[in-house]
Amino acid sequence: MNVGGRQYRTIWVAEDGRSVEIIDQTKLPHAFVVAKLTTLDDAAAAIENMQVRGAPLIGVAAAYGICLALHRDAGDGAMAEACRRLSATRPTAVNLRALLARMTDHLTPLAPGERVAAAYALAAELADEDAARNRAIGEHGLALLRAIAGVVRGTRRLEVMTHCNAGWLATVDFGTALAPVYAAHDSGIPVHVWVSETRPRNQGASLTAWELGQHGVPYTAIVDSAAGHLMQRGDVDVVLVGTDRTTAAGVVANKIGTYMKALAARDCAIPFYVATPSPSIDWTLQDGRDIPIEERSAAEVTHIAGRAASGRVETVQLFPDGADAKNFGFDITPTKFVTGLITERGVCQASREGLLGLFPERDWRLKTAGASV
Amino acid sequence: MNVGGRQYRTIWVAEDGRSVEIIDQTKLPHAFVVAKLTTLDDAAAAIENMQVRGAPLIGVAAAYGICLALHRDAGDGAMAEACRRLSATRPTAVNLRALLARMTDHLTPLAPGERVAAAYALAAELADEDAARNRAIGEHGLALLRAIAGVVRGTRRLEVMTHCNAGWLATVDFGTALAPVYAAHDSGIPVHVWVSETRPRNQGASLTAWELGQHGVPYTAIVDSAAGHLMQRGDVDVVLVGTDRTTAAGVVANKIGTYMKALAARDCAIPFYVATPSPSIDWTLQDGRDIPIEERSAAEVTHIAGRAASGRVETVQLFPDGADAKNFGFDITPTKFVTGLITERGVCQASREGLLGLFPERDWRLKTAGASV
Repeated sequence: MNVGGRQYRTIWVAEDGRSVEIIDQTKLPHAFVVAKLTTLDDAAAAIENMQVRGAPLIGVAAAYGICLALHRDAGDGAMAEACRRLSATRPTAVNLRALLARMTDHLTPLAPGERVAAAYALAAELADEDAARNRAIGEHGLALLRAIAGVVRGTRRLEVMTHCNAGWLATVDFGTALAPVYAAHDSGIPVHVWVSETRPRNQGASLTAWELGQHGVPYTAIVDSAAGHLMQRGDVDVVLVGTDRTTAAGVVANKIGTYMKALAARDCAIPFYVATPSPSIDWTLQDGRDIPIEERSAAEVTHIAGRAASGRVETVQLFPDGADAKNFGFDITPTKFVTGLITERGVCQASREGLLGLFPERDWRLKTAGASV
Repeated sequence: MNVGGRQYRTIWVAEDGRSVEIIDQTKLPHAFVVAKLTTLDDAAAAIENMQVRGAPLIGVAAAYGICLALHRDAGDGAMAEACRRLSATRPTAVNLRALLARMTDHLTPLAPGERVAAAYALAAELADEDAARNRAIGEHGLALLRAIAGVVRGTRRLEVMTHCNAGWLATVDFGTALAPVYAAHDSGIPVHVWVSETRPRNQGASLTAWELGQHGVPYTAIVDSAAGHLMQRGDVDVVLVGTDRTTAAGVVANKIGTYMKALAARDCAIPFYVATPSPSIDWTLQDGRDIPIEERSAAEVTHIAGRAASGRVETVQLFPDGADAKNFGFDITPTKFVTGLITERGVCQASREGLLGLFPERDWRLKTAGASV
């Protein structure tokens, strides 16, 4: 996507052919900074500290983390250790583990001397696959937006609400939930996005607003709590969000706050779609209660960072000294509140039947996992 | 209530017998500052700038604003102008207009020379009435909390969730939604409060957390978006919120975000109560759509204030430069999501019948307003 007129992905191999460069998302929206990762620890820290984030992107970042690790030691032990270290960075997104499995399945049979080149080749392939998947999600979602825009055509622009950042910054390129928005905008449908700031880390404020602005898509900032009121007023035509993990039964784990947006959409009879690239589907789980929910530092709740009048980014304290806080990264949206899942193969019901209709090859896995299909 | 061991109300007449002193709530939780109001403009600005806020407290602050105005000019024209100026400060809370009507109804028949003393006397009476009402709400709510605590007794503490600040800082004393919490805590029921920060102005973070901490009630800070997840996990036994205006049919306007908390409570089968002192009931309205919803400055969404590492309170920017924002102060919770209204006369259904059962003297007003009872 475009940043100041130049084409960028969120992650790429540096000119030295070895290091990996990323857009440091902790610096946005106040500064556009490219960071260089040269070791396994750099990659793991970039995921932990959320310099890269978003389920699809952290999967690809982990794949490149394997590349960086193998450069130092391409033996089985080092590869297993790298895989363990990267798996432990963040618990909720399943893409991370899915792409690490792709890497190790492919690399393990190879001789250590062949692994480094093969790892970079596969990581590049995984990055390209991600971009292609998201582009397909954009096309399928565009068909939905066209249908909804048809209803309001000529009277006003199409009003989309999203949550957190499931844009191109959350992926290698194009985004998941925002891919249909970009496709609609680029095809001339007048579209406007309600951007909820997404406390505690404000990925809506700092990332979604920024990338929509760079692309020229009009948006309006709101606090997270305002979502329901806007839906009640009739100011939202469709809600589009991403997912960090969706079970084989269609239960959606996504950024904390998604569940309440889904409840409001249901109460107001507004369609609620989840952009779900297949690596975000956990075919081994049915029940949302089995998805591990990441808990992060209390300081992310009690404090917040932003640009001070001085121009410097400063962290300020919001709660009284000594306040205890709980910081859940994600919540669970039951299938009954999800109008549909937008996958790279098309749109389906948030159900086992819906997902297996699009991914029939997964049927045997459900059976071997002992689930009652 | 107690601040550092000393008894305070939120508003009182200063030692000079004329000026009015308030706790400047824009300085909390990082500093406890008493501000002096000496003119009508001081009082109006204190309400507009939210140095005093909370539906019950702004009603009493407006009453004292009339006192300050009459000191300068006790004529009919000046009184009407003061009333107009104070009415225009904030649109949603109905207490403001209710208490101004009480003041002018009482003062208009008096000779100008008698008005100043009568105004201070009535304002003091209104303040005492507010405290007494809230104490009664605390007692009625305590009965509910005892019943709920009976279910969990011995296994764990009672888990209350609130929103924004409907504590003693929102009133003259005791609070509305928090009055039952203080009553429970003081009577030995182990109670814990989930405090959502309440963006954009963070009254949860800066006021509710602070006053609970001063009183020794344990609490945990969360972002607004985490409310649904906690309810889903079974970590909330009851939701208690306040109201800025409740219609005669029981429809509740309260701080933005209340509606989504009510939706989550319903989905999780958790009781959702609204502390509703009678001056917050608008007997002239039935439909929530008729309640004016205040829109405030976009800068409250795009920026936030907190205490920087330097110790100074600083405002930092969260969104990219030039971001447009919408800032709704309140939202509407339909009656079907409200388990009950806790008034100073007892607990009732959120319905016309429920409210008239407790306030039968209001029946004629509904009839003269032409509503179909």
